[in-house]
Amino acid sequence: MDKIAFTPIEELGEFGLIDFLTKDLKNFSGKTIKSVGDDCAVIDLQGKKLLISTDMMVHGVHFDLDYFPLQHLGYKAITSSISDIYAMNAMASQLTVSIAVSNHFSVEMLELLYSGMKTACENYQVDFVGGDTTTLGKGLIICVTALGYANQEDIVYRKGSAKNEILCVSGDLGAAYTGLLILEREKQVYLVDKEMQPQLDDYEYILKRILRPEARKDIIDFFAKMKIKPTSMIDISDGLSSEIFHLCKQSGVGVKLFEDKIPLDPMTYNTARELNLDPTLCALNGGEDYELLFTLEADDFEKVKNSPDITPIGHITDEDYGIKMISKSGNEHPIKAQGWKVFNKSE
Amino acid sequence: MDKIAFTPIEELGEFGLIDFLTKDLKNFSGKTIKSVGDDCAVIDLQGKKLLISTDMMVHGVHFDLDYFPLQHLGYKAITSSISDIYAMNAMASQLTVSIAVSNHFSVEMLELLYSGMKTACENYQVDFVGGDTTTLGKGLIICVTALGYANQEDIVYRKGSAKNEILCVSGDLGAAYTGLLILEREKQVYLVDKEMQPQLDDYEYILKRILRPEARKDIIDFFAKMKIKPTSMIDISDGLSSEIFHLCKQSGVGVKLFEDKIPLDPMTYNTARELNLDPTLCALNGGEDYELLFTLEADDFEKVKNSPDITPIGHITDEDYGIKMISKSGNEHPIKAQGWKVFNKSE
Repeated sequence: MDKIAFTPIEELGEFGLIDFLTKDLKNFSGKTIKSVGDDCAVIDLQGKKLLISTDMMVHGVHFDLDYFPLQHLGYKAITSSISDIYAMNAMASQLTVSIAVSNHFSVEMLELLYSGMKTACENYQVDFVGGDTTTLGKGLIICVTALGYANQEDIVYRKGSAKNEILCVSGDLGAAYTGLLILEREKQVYLVDKEMQPQLDDYEYILKRILRPEARKDIIDFFAKMKIKPTSMIDISDGLSSEIFHLCKQSGVGVKLFEDKIPLDPMTYNTARELNLDPTLCALNGGEDYELLFTLEADDFEKVKNSPDITPIGHITDEDYGIKMISKSGNEHPIKAQGWKVFNKSE
Repeated sequence: MDKIAFTPIEELGEFGLIDFLTKDLKNFSGKTIKSVGDDCAVIDLQGKKLLISTDMMVHGVHFDLDYFPLQHLGYKAITSSISDIYAMNAMASQLTVSIAVSNHFSVEMLELLYSGMKTACENYQVDFVGGDTTTLGKGLIICVTALGYANQEDIVYRKGSAKNEILCVSGDLGAAYTGLLILEREKQVYLVDKEMQPQLDDYEYILKRILRPEARKDIIDFFAKMKIKPTSMIDISDGLSSEIFHLCKQSGVGVKLFEDKIPLDPMTYNTARELNLDPTLCALNGGEDYELLFTLEADDFEKVKNSPDITPIGHITDEDYGIKMISKSGNEHPIKAQGWKVFNKSE
């Protein structure tokens, strides 16, 4: 934890704390009529359809404050939430943030957390319009509700893909997971020997992916510019295999995935190897990449096939085929959905 | 805690749990296009303005599971949240619910919690459209985001009252707080002597007010029917004095409040006396009544003055006058905003 001044939260009280943390909020969306400061925020969607998604992040489950800088945590709380809006091919426009926090946190620590949130709101032009703050015996819990808007005909659901369409993914996969493993390794080293400084210099990209991920608004903007509408889409928060299962289940289709097409950053690949892990499994089962997984009809695929940031990784089959991966050696393997089962973690 | 079957949450996993808890959700609002089951819910507000409010409830701070039945807790989580929508003179239409819960909770316990939520959603014709479930080391945290809609010209803010308007309140005050004190008293008796059964039979009304409060949708419906528009409004979650301060601060006005006008149920009055408390202070500083506090112009007040459920308790003054109460003995006292300071509680 950074060394910063410590003003106890109770010095400000709940209303004082809210005033302090929200005092310099700006609105970006042009759709917010009334922001923080009343019973509700008031929003004018100007005839568009409303999208809403909620995510809860818990210290010890979704993040570890031993190595998670509070500014990054605030940033990630926002980007991971608005990622769900982009995954519907919509624009994120407002959000509310509720936190429950132990009295062991200071006003300055919350200021850092909120400064990360405000930076994300500015980067994505999203308005912070409300929330709640309350106390908690231990730790920190962040609940973000993100709102977005779209024309009805532009909204893309998980359901909608059909046989022969191309399964594509943005960016690269498995980086956040390997970054997390490095952070956990260095924490264990530190716990054994407090004199040891963490060795993190060689892992900048994968650490950024776990600590300060971006949401793929740029991909949604690209779709709009190129007049592309995916037939189905989901964001990758629980790992590629889990998200493929969601798409297939809702669309009633199967998938043939090609292992050698799965995009991996060289640092992800090398770190997985260093940790004696299969890089492909890191992509399939590691979560929190916040990339977009989507299916395209052939005409739309023609428009993206030269984009360096979109990779075709397989194609849609009949449901009877199942969900299978063609390995690098050419063998066909059924994929299992592992994902990230928070309820299986021990306390 | 009720004796019920115990299926560990990890037997279902996160997605299984969500499926189980949301399997029989109905939509009531006519405005929900897509509910639970995708990255976002999709909502058609049909040209109205959107209202959004978020509340977080924490075991040990906002509720005590030692005496709070889970069904009632679920009901209250919903009604206390949509109360903020009605406090803007709007209709509640959708909500999302996120929970963080210890593995000490069973699937059956969560089913009870959600059944209370579903009952509230049905009673208020609000659609449960999404949320998140995650694990927590200890206890239970509930975060509800409520959405509502209104025509822009109908929305009532905290700001808007002017001199000589009538300050009114719905229902009666202080009941939830005295109910809470009875629950706390009986818990202490039980902790000293586990053979003692709690004595709660004589306190039904005030216990219902703390354990299963209603939101005042009926008052908003009445306003619409009578073509009344309050000039300012807030719901009473932190106590009358705190809410009066919010209205006055935002409107730049003062208030002359009459102690003998504050509506108290006889059970509230008698219980306060039994506990050696001033009943007026229970109304001023006790929270969680979820009644509406609002200001009316003289013409609108004429339309409500025979309503048994709306009581004029004072009038708006210049800001210079301050916020004062005329006591039953005729003396003028400045009011202090106490409210409910969650951050002052010890852990």
